[in-house]
Amino acid sequence: LDKKQRYNFHNEFTDLHVYEQAEIFTTLDKEQRQRVYQYLTPKELSDTFDAIEDDPEEVVKYFDEMSLKYVAELLDNMYTDNEVDLLGQLDKHKLAKYLGLIDKDKANEIKSLLHYEDKTAGAIMSTDFASIVSSQTVRSAMQVLREEAENAETIYYDYVVNNDKRLLGIVTLRNLLMSDEDALIGDIMTTPVMSVKADDDQEDVAKMIRDYNFLAMPVTNYDEQLIGVITVDDIIDVIDEESAEDYSGLAGVDTEEQTENPFKAASKRLPWLITLLFLGMSTASLVSHFEGLLSEASILAVFISLITGTAGNAGTQSLAVAVRRLAVKDDTEQSVVRLIISEVFTGLVIGVVTGIAVTLIVGIWKDNFVLGMVIGLAMMSAITVANLAGSFIPILMDKIGVDPAVASGPFISTLSDLTSVLIYFSIAQVFLKFFITS
Amino acid sequence: LDKKQRYNFHNEFTDLHVYEQAEIFTTLDKEQRQRVYQYLTPKELSDTFDAIEDDPEEVVKYFDEMSLKYVAELLDNMYTDNEVDLLGQLDKHKLAKYLGLIDKDKANEIKSLLHYEDKTAGAIMSTDFASIVSSQTVRSAMQVLREEAENAETIYYDYVVNNDKRLLGIVTLRNLLMSDEDALIGDIMTTPVMSVKADDDQEDVAKMIRDYNFLAMPVTNYDEQLIGVITVDDIIDVIDEESAEDYSGLAGVDTEEQTENPFKAASKRLPWLITLLFLGMSTASLVSHFEGLLSEASILAVFISLITGTAGNAGTQSLAVAVRRLAVKDDTEQSVVRLIISEVFTGLVIGVVTGIAVTLIVGIWKDNFVLGMVIGLAMMSAITVANLAGSFIPILMDKIGVDPAVASGPFISTLSDLTSVLIYFSIAQVFLKFFITS
Repeated sequence: LDKKQRYNFHNEFTDLHVYEQAEIFTTLDKEQRQRVYQYLTPKELSDTFDAIEDDPEEVVKYFDEMSLKYVAELLDNMYTDNEVDLLGQLDKHKLAKYLGLIDKDKANEIKSLLHYEDKTAGAIMSTDFASIVSSQTVRSAMQVLREEAENAETIYYDYVVNNDKRLLGIVTLRNLLMSDEDALIGDIMTTPVMSVKADDDQEDVAKMIRDYNFLAMPVTNYDEQLIGVITVDDIIDVIDEESAEDYSGLAGVDTEEQTENPFKAASKRLPWLITLLFLGMSTASLVSHFEGLLSEASILAVFISLITGTAGNAGTQSLAVAVRRLAVKDDTEQSVVRLIISEVFTGLVIGVVTGIAVTLIVGIWKDNFVLGMVIGLAMMSAITVANLAGSFIPILMDKIGVDPAVASGPFISTLSDLTSVLIYFSIAQVFLKFFITS
Repeated sequence: LDKKQRYNFHNEFTDLHVYEQAEIFTTLDKEQRQRVYQYLTPKELSDTFDAIEDDPEEVVKYFDEMSLKYVAELLDNMYTDNEVDLLGQLDKHKLAKYLGLIDKDKANEIKSLLHYEDKTAGAIMSTDFASIVSSQTVRSAMQVLREEAENAETIYYDYVVNNDKRLLGIVTLRNLLMSDEDALIGDIMTTPVMSVKADDDQEDVAKMIRDYNFLAMPVTNYDEQLIGVITVDDIIDVIDEESAEDYSGLAGVDTEEQTENPFKAASKRLPWLITLLFLGMSTASLVSHFEGLLSEASILAVFISLITGTAGNAGTQSLAVAVRRLAVKDDTEQSVVRLIISEVFTGLVIGVVTGIAVTLIVGIWKDNFVLGMVIGLAMMSAITVANLAGSFIPILMDKIGVDPAVASGPFISTLSDLTSVLIYFSIAQVFLKFFITS
């Protein structure tokens, strides 16, 4: 019975797409996983592991359930880039243990790959690539690709190197197919070829692959030697990751959090909220200074949330525009200044329009146009300042090397509460006798 | 001289990558563009036009500068999917004019493609694909691909059809290279093959390509006939577009706006801000009802922005988590309810923690623990309600078929201002005599 069950499982599982295998594998319990380790060879399971997209920190835990030999063989059959992601999560002791078990050349390669900083081209590149030399004929290059086809991440973009492994050009498999079999690679290759350095930011690589519609990008060291390739599927993950970060940054919360446990979720969101709470307390203490004013004219309290709310909304819009502009454009000194000026003027225009609207509404509603004007003027100024903060702060953060996405919407709106309240009560104080007596 | 200039420009321009050609072309002025039309053949310029990623509405304006014949030939050489993007922008009269000039078969194809709704698989698919039949040998299939290589969007993923054009399976060029030349396609193809329907949402296609790491996806009609392919480079644009939309939605502003003209920018942002201003006016009129309470205890005004601000921040976090969860997960009835419950409880936990913190801070600061408790209790309730709104509203929108991303951060925080103020003053009214007299 067990044999038959094993046979069935083996066939059904390996017939699935590796993505589905990974989805299924990660939902199994420990006992079921043990059976998988028996039913599948490490080589078969290595494809599944290549496709698991869970946090590597979680994935390496599976290793503890396998025999050392099984792990070694599994790792040996994985693509190097995924392997490095996993091994990078282990402590030194465990890492040495596993590296000792796999092929020496591969172990050395992994050691050098582990040195690349997170989110660089080196950290996401694969070293399983096919390269051809410029003196080969198309026929012989095709033969190389046939041999490499099983192990290389891609054979559709083939990089041409000289005898020193220096990157010279690129031929696509499409070019090869369309060329005469006796043609020399050196004659048909496209040159110069765009490449990135191993310590380039993964976002820059993503931008190039996206703009140029490439399927892969070669990575070189500082001697211009080809050391890896980055394929488009890895770049899609980078794009996803970066956009999720931007989105999370704007909301001030990690939106990829998977927990449905309220205590865990709360513990992740609280630090930021508590920080902002202290900023909010400053606003409260500022209002507190104006308590005399407020007891004379309690009507002023009616419009606090209207002014802080609208300015906060406008500031959040400015922030989002500025963060995106910083991400997309080359932020030369000049364009950055232009961005701030443009945002402040946009704030002024918005402020004038909403200010006039509010002046009229409040003036008619409370039959007090001086009060209306105070509210309108406060709103106009508060929005202009909020737009200044919304554009200036992310740019400042960018300049001092902090990810501008950290300047979240909640931060800008809480900060704008402070400035709005200050502006509002200062203006109100000046005009107090006019709208109280009128 | 002109001849030499022409020769130089021609060579330098066509040596560039099409992306760079497009970048350069779109910065030229009208006179310079006129010269480009003279220097380059329509066929040469068609590659540039394939790569222009500007708003199609802008791109079609260039057509008016060319002779009819030039436009027709340019269109004839573009990839169908890009061509359709452009022609879709024209009015009926102009469209008929251009369609009359190009190849009849192609014109009919374009007419049928123009019917697909925006953001569906049909609208982004290309009809320039290579297909092979299952009874072919690998050798003859390779021959087909060699012939199609110049015009097909991709030859790396090759879809296998039967005589009725029904989609049967897929072979990758990698498979073909690794197979015996005499093998039958039917024997080496992978089957079943995943496909999408022409009216499927482009986001669903993006999800599949991303999860399965495909380079392309076949599109079929309801008779299972292959009618197009979607390649990974188009999917990257979809992913970019969708994430920019999510980001813009959260901030309540189109962050892809390129204008630095404050009036244009303001006119795009104002409609949403004015809408929210009216919601803010409701909050103001609510506070107005409590003016009696406020004149008795002007201290209450001190904490309005603290409570509305913190609740707004928590609500924005909930909103962002809910919108992302809706986008990523299969939203079964059950998981949606679980999400709301989880968010409300998270709000409760956050509310209790910040509530206690605020109670202590305000209690000590104002030496009035009853007041502290009122503020703390109000904050706890306001946050819980904000989290309910932040998770419930996007889910509700999703259910009634509205994009949940429309429920922006500014909307949730403005709405939460209203509920927070109501909660705050209601609680304050109940405890009024205790904290005023104490």
